[in-house]
Amino acid sequence: MGKVICVGLGPGDPELMSLRAARRLEAARHVAYFCKRGGRGQARAIVEGLLPPQAVEYAMEYPVTTEIPVGDPRYNALLSAFYADWSDRIAELARIEDVVVLCEGDPFFYGSFMHLHARLQGRAEMEIVPGITGMSGCWTETGVPITWGDDVLTVLMATLPEDELTRRIADTDALVVMKIGRNLAKLKRALIAANRLEQAWLIERGTMKDQRIGRLIETETVPYFSIVVVHGQGRRP
Amino acid sequence: MGKVICVGLGPGDPELMSLRAARRLEAARHVAYFCKRGGRGQARAIVEGLLPPQAVEYAMEYPVTTEIPVGDPRYNALLSAFYADWSDRIAELARIEDVVVLCEGDPFFYGSFMHLHARLQGRAEMEIVPGITGMSGCWTETGVPITWGDDVLTVLMATLPEDELTRRIADTDALVVMKIGRNLAKLKRALIAANRLEQAWLIERGTMKDQRIGRLIETETVPYFSIVVVHGQGRRP
Repeated sequence: MGKVICVGLGPGDPELMSLRAARRLEAARHVAYFCKRGGRGQARAIVEGLLPPQAVEYAMEYPVTTEIPVGDPRYNALLSAFYADWSDRIAELARIEDVVVLCEGDPFFYGSFMHLHARLQGRAEMEIVPGITGMSGCWTETGVPITWGDDVLTVLMATLPEDELTRRIADTDALVVMKIGRNLAKLKRALIAANRLEQAWLIERGTMKDQRIGRLIETETVPYFSIVVVHGQGRRP
Repeated sequence: MGKVICVGLGPGDPELMSLRAARRLEAARHVAYFCKRGGRGQARAIVEGLLPPQAVEYAMEYPVTTEIPVGDPRYNALLSAFYADWSDRIAELARIEDVVVLCEGDPFFYGSFMHLHARLQGRAEMEIVPGITGMSGCWTETGVPITWGDDVLTVLMATLPEDELTRRIADTDALVVMKIGRNLAKLKRALIAANRLEQAWLIERGTMKDQRIGRLIETETVPYFSIVVVHGQGRRP
C-alpha cells in the first residue's frame, strides 16, 4: 500500500526546496506533474536532473488553460473531468506504491494539487510537503522586507473585479497580487485609483535564472509567473 | 571580506529548511540568533546538532519582550539600542568572515532580522535565504487547503484594535492571525462578531514535535508560537 505525496518545490530555484522535498524526490518511483498541453510545466522544470532514472513520469496536461473563459460552464466541466480522471489513476497507482505529485510553491496555497486532494479523500493516504511560496521568493528578491510590526498583508488575485481590487489595495499595508497575465491593465488602473502604483514592484519568474525585477509602472506585459508586491511600512524600532 | 547571511529556517521542523539554508549552516563560522534573556530561542532550537563544532555562537538576547508595553517609548528606545549594538558587532565580524543570522520562518515576513538588515545597509554585503513561513507550515498541518481560485487571503496581527480585527475578519475569504498570546480574548470576540469563530483553527507550535491542532473555540490560552487559520472556500472545479 503506497501513499500520495505532494511535494511543494518552492518558488523556482531548486536550492529553495526543503530537505524533505529533496528526500521524497530521491526516493520517487512514480512522479506526476501538471503542465500545459505540449509543455512540461514549471514544477517539472524545477526537478530537472533530480529524479531517479527509473522513475516513471506522468504529465497531467490541462485540457484547457486560457482558451475558454473561467466563467464558462464548459471550463469547469472539462477541468472537473480532468481532475477526476487523474485522481482515479493516482489512487490506482497508490494501491501498490508511493506516487509523488510535483507542485511549484506551496501546495495548499492556490495550488492545482488541491483539486486532486479533495477527490482522493478516503481513497489514499496523503502527505503534503509544504514549500516556500512564490511570493516569499519574490519579496526576498526585492531586497526589501514585506511586513513589519502590525502590518496587514493582503493577497489578491488580479482576476477580481476592478472596484474590489481598488478597495482592497487602498485598505492594506502590504500587498501581493498574483494571476496577473491578461488582468495587467485592470490591476494598474486599480493601483492608480488606490494611489499605490508608484510603490508597486513587479517580479517576473522570481528566483529563476531569467528573473526580472522592476517597477510595475514601467511594465506593459507580464508572463504567467509574475507577482506584484507593495511593501508594508509598519513600526520599526 | 565576509557577508551577512540571514538564513530562513522554516516553520520549526528542521527537515523543512531549504537545501540552501542547510548548506549555509554547514559552512557557518559565526552564528547569531535572537532569543529571550536566559533562553535559546526557536531559531537556535531548529538547528540543534546541525552547526559545525567550530562555529562561534552569538546569542542576541532581547532586552525586553513583554515587560514593557509596545506603545511605551522606553520599549522602542531599548530595542533600537539593542539592534544598533548588534548591527555594529555583526558588521565588524563581517569585515573578516561570513556571519550567519538564524531566523525562524521567512526572514522578510515579520522577522526580527529586518531591524538589523535596515541598519546594515551599505555596511556589509547581505544575502537573505527565504524560508517556509510558519503559516504555511500550520495550514499544511490542518490537512485542508488555505486558498482556492480567487480567494482573498488576509494576514492579521492580533495586536490590532478589536474593531479593526472584526472588520477585516468579516471582509476576507481566508484568514491567518499571528501574535496572539495576550490578545486571545480580544481575537475571539472579533471572530464571534464577524461570525467566523466556528471556522477558526488554532495551531500551536506547528510542525514541531509538540504540535497541537484544534478548534480555537475550545482554547483558553495559547503559547507564543500559535497561529489561527480560517480556510477559504473559493471556486473548485
